[in-house]
Amino acid sequence: MKRPGEEVITSLQNPRIKEAVRLLDRRARKRTGRTRIDGARELLRALDGGVRPEALYVCEELVRPGEGAEALQRCRQLEVPIWRVSAELSARLAFGDRNEGLCAIVRWQPLTFDELTIPDDPLLLVVQAVEKPGNLGALLRTADGAGVDAVLLCDAVTDATNPNAIRASMGTIFTVPLAQGGSADAWALLQAHRVRVSTTRPEASTSYWEADLTGPLALVVGAEHEGLGESWQQEEITALRIPMAGAADSLNVNVAAALVLFEARRQRSRQRGESN
Amino acid sequence: MKRPGEEVITSLQNPRIKEAVRLLDRRARKRTGRTRIDGARELLRALDGGVRPEALYVCEELVRPGEGAEALQRCRQLEVPIWRVSAELSARLAFGDRNEGLCAIVRWQPLTFDELTIPDDPLLLVVQAVEKPGNLGALLRTADGAGVDAVLLCDAVTDATNPNAIRASMGTIFTVPLAQGGSADAWALLQAHRVRVSTTRPEASTSYWEADLTGPLALVVGAEHEGLGESWQQEEITALRIPMAGAADSLNVNVAAALVLFEARRQRSRQRGESN
Repeated sequence: MKRPGEEVITSLQNPRIKEAVRLLDRRARKRTGRTRIDGARELLRALDGGVRPEALYVCEELVRPGEGAEALQRCRQLEVPIWRVSAELSARLAFGDRNEGLCAIVRWQPLTFDELTIPDDPLLLVVQAVEKPGNLGALLRTADGAGVDAVLLCDAVTDATNPNAIRASMGTIFTVPLAQGGSADAWALLQAHRVRVSTTRPEASTSYWEADLTGPLALVVGAEHEGLGESWQQEEITALRIPMAGAADSLNVNVAAALVLFEARRQRSRQRGESN
Repeated sequence: MKRPGEEVITSLQNPRIKEAVRLLDRRARKRTGRTRIDGARELLRALDGGVRPEALYVCEELVRPGEGAEALQRCRQLEVPIWRVSAELSARLAFGDRNEGLCAIVRWQPLTFDELTIPDDPLLLVVQAVEKPGNLGALLRTADGAGVDAVLLCDAVTDATNPNAIRASMGTIFTVPLAQGGSADAWALLQAHRVRVSTTRPEASTSYWEADLTGPLALVVGAEHEGLGESWQQEEITALRIPMAGAADSLNVNVAAALVLFEARRQRSRQRGESN
């Protein structure tokens, strides 16, 4: 049902629709400092993370009960300007193969390293030069699940505002503290906070099962093909082996990160005597 | 360098080239019982798994030293018929965005449950109604790494011979015993071998960290959106919780499977007093 003050857009030529479509393009995101959030769950996570949309395009007949209705209601409570569109227009506007009748426009970008608050005894994930937005998003979803305190995105080849990254993260890109910068600055930040740095390597002598993963810890993961850049070859970095029992010698980067981060979480929880 | 007996194909209209291109289509794979293996690593894993190609299309200038050269040499040793193609033809023939100058044609399909050998004290993965070939392939790569004894593919929505599944598996689809059938038959097989069946559920009371994952065990994972089918709702199934520390309530299916399978492996290795 249309509420007072909610305008109806009927044409694909409407400048507001054009702007939303343009934000699928990296240059437009860079120029405007804005990106789009498509989908109910992604939008709920953004709201959880304190992101207030500048505008919301809604096709109410496509908004599903549950998460969809909740996301719409929370945007109305925040008095987000709402633009109502037809199912046809919504289909033209939508990103990817899932259209839930909700597309929000937000000003959002990763923090700088200076803006990041590192808690005591942190568990951190450093993502270096990962290329595919979907891989970055998947790593953020994993980091969220493992309760990582912050993700440091270094030498970014991909753009964190890419709708693919947002979708693959299931919106957790807005709830996990995410900061972006160069590898040298990330290294300096970790040293300043006395954070031990680890990475996985097939030839490492210590397995991640044997290693003590309690205490301030950062796991560094690298590009899909190239491995880690020069800044992450220091001797102080602890190499961890993931015991491989099959024919292949490596796992997907997201799986490798999940194994180490959840093992770190398991050890920490055991150390605190928690029951899980 | 062209060897004696290696024919050169120069035209995209050549029937052999047409057949290889047609195998990108599911119907052609089904009709012929054949599929394609693109890429050096994938081909090496297939050779490791005892798959002998019926033919190999080679563009030698694109074959890289190391894995590429090794795959080509092993095919020559097996006297696989080799068809030499130009770089241009190879590009037209290639699957996806990575062309390593190697495309093998194989007769291959998953085993039936009857053909599967289940060892003592098995660790198994049951994949139920997973839709995307890439997700199936990723799960196989994870299963290989965790040393899973067999993967049971139930109520298959996707086709295991899909080149996307082969690529995402990095070729481990040919090294991990993979059998396909219906859920009811899979359940009967697991009961006959007294295999405990587990799955992950957000509301489960026991975490996978606390659960005893030693002994004969099968982990069941389900479709991306729908969850597990009716056959996998039995009371005898142990539900495991993955402790989630962030905003989202679920992980990617491949990550969830990896966490439980590697924890099962860790517990088994500790039980045997192995040093890892």
